[in-house]
Amino acid sequence: MSELLVSKWLNTRDDISLEQLRGNVVLVYVFQMLCPACILHSIPQASKVHQVFAPEKLQVLGLHSVFEHHDAMKEQSLRAFMHEFRIKFPVGIDKASIRTKGIIPQTMEKYAMQGTPTLLIYDKKGELRLQKFGHIDDIELGFILGSLTSEIVS
Amino acid sequence: MSELLVSKWLNTRDDISLEQLRGNVVLVYVFQMLCPACILHSIPQASKVHQVFAPEKLQVLGLHSVFEHHDAMKEQSLRAFMHEFRIKFPVGIDKASIRTKGIIPQTMEKYAMQGTPTLLIYDKKGELRLQKFGHIDDIELGFILGSLTSEIVS
Amino acid sequence: MSELLVSKWLNTRDDISLEQLRGNVVLVYVFQMLCPACILHSIPQASKVHQVFAPEKLQVLGLHSVFEHHDAMKEQSLRAFMHEFRIKFPVGIDKASIRTKGIIPQTMEKYAMQGTPTLLIYDKKGELRLQKFGHIDDIELGFILGSLTSEIVS
Amino acid sequence: MSELLVSKWLNTRDDISLEQLRGNVVLVYVFQMLCPACILHSIPQASKVHQVFAPEKLQVLGLHSVFEHHDAMKEQSLRAFMHEFRIKFPVGIDKASIRTKGIIPQTMEKYAMQGTPTLLIYDKKGELRLQKFGHIDDIELGFILGSLTSEIVS
Repeated sequence: MSELLVSKWLNTRDDISLEQLRGNVVLVYVFQMLCPACILHSIPQASKVHQVFAPEKLQVLGLHSVFEHHDAMKEQSLRAFMHEFRIKFPVGIDKASIRTKGIIPQTMEKYAMQGTPTLLIYDKKGELRLQKFGHIDDIELGFILGSLTSEIVS
Repeated sequence: MSELLVSKWLNTRDDISLEQLRGNVVLVYVFQMLCPACILHSIPQASKVHQVFAPEKLQVLGLHSVFEHHDAMKEQSLRAFMHEFRIKFPVGIDKASIRTKGIIPQTMEKYAMQGTPTLLIYDKKGELRLQKFGHIDDIELGFILGSLTSEIVS
Repeated sequence: MSELLVSKWLNTRDDISLEQLRGNVVLVYVFQMLCPACILHSIPQASKVHQVFAPEKLQVLGLHSVFEHHDAMKEQSLRAFMHEFRIKFPVGIDKASIRTKGIIPQTMEKYAMQGTPTLLIYDKKGELRLQKFGHIDDIELGFILGSLTSEIVS
Repeated sequence: MSELLVSKWLNTRDDISLEQLRGNVVLVYVFQMLCPACILHSIPQASKVHQVFAPEKLQVLGLHSVFEHHDAMKEQSLRAFMHEFRIKFPVGIDKASIRTKGIIPQTMEKYAMQGTPTLLIYDKKGELRLQKFGHIDDIELGFILGSLTSEIVS
């Protein structure tokens, strides 16, 4: 299990870790608030998955991984965005690069993501089963979620 | 298992029965060719499921159950419709009512369907697991299909 | 003015001619009931134009021009289709070819249409101002209609 | 003519005034960058109108009128938003309230707008002909634009 590196969690009382969520299927929607494909496709899909299946069947998380326009997407802006777009699931802020002048946040770099939106899906054992850059069709996503939640963990 | 009552199968060399398909998850899209909700939502969803998952993961069938405008939806018209809408999966024609002046075809009556579109989903054992009148969202359908195909039949 | 050649008008008490409608901007949506692009785009647009603008600002007509699957799209089927798709504007049936074995109906041939959907737009003087095969975007269509209805005819 | 009160223009070399644009039909899309209805409907419509009709037939402008989450929607954020959403038309920043603790920007207050999105349409004489809060359908907007551009100004 490759833990998310998060500087701050929003929309949740307590911090969240993948370790804690072991035993659950977990989706992590990695996004930037000013990414059109995220706004038009990814965030609405995340909200639908959250509304239809969480928390009984699975867990939905967001991860705000800013790799461009950093000054335009700080916490304050993200909070306004989440309020306006009615995001109800927990969202973590990807830790800023530790390198001088580094622009890629730490989780994004660790996972070698190509950009946003990226979807990460972990099974009940905490294994990463899907890492997908771009859009995934609802019916294919639903199939994966139905399959993974059916897995019996000994 | 409650067998479909079909007078003729199109888009298939051999006749089809649920009995034959035991061991597979099977979807039956019940429709009428002049039903707007069928054309706008149900048939496109059926074609997507067929294209994405069949025949490895599941089987998709259509059932043309005409309960109104009978003269406008005969086999010849259905064949033109299937050609124009590029329906690639097998479609059965629901058997006409055996009663004098009966307008509800036999499978539709046997299953007490409320109209079209109706979706029937059978598990690998041939048990009917879902009968839904109207539209089902792609993500919910995908989840059901992922769950059912994961079931292990002893 | 190049009159429509119609064997029968539906959804109207009296027969209709372009000559009668002179003084009005007139849209003619040429379609086949089993043409997917007609069902998905053209007919819904025609119904919207009819609902928003007719009859005060303009007239909307349909023309059923069958050039394939003739037996599947006869008057009876068309009537069922119009009922199911709630078509409220008058629809004429394009006159069958006068030639032996001719498959292209007379208005379609006279206008050298490439297929369906085709949109014909006439100005207040009865002049054909647009003949377009395929889809036209709502905003471009609206602009043309706003322009043509603004023309002053002396 | 009730001039826009703008602190700064983006996407244009020179400042813009309605007075200068007299003789043109002018659309002003009033928006906030974190307003979902603006992002999903209004900005895409503005970009389409700009692409299809401007600058020959009409002028498209944006006005960024922030009345909430002010700190999240400053110029820097707006510039990132405009870059990501590929906004090609000029956008003015509505002047901040002159009153202490005032949150409604000056143009928004002057026009008594109810919120965002709001669409303002001026005719060739510079008269305001439409002020609409919320979404306007493409076909209705196209009709208005076709009508107004057809008006002859003596």
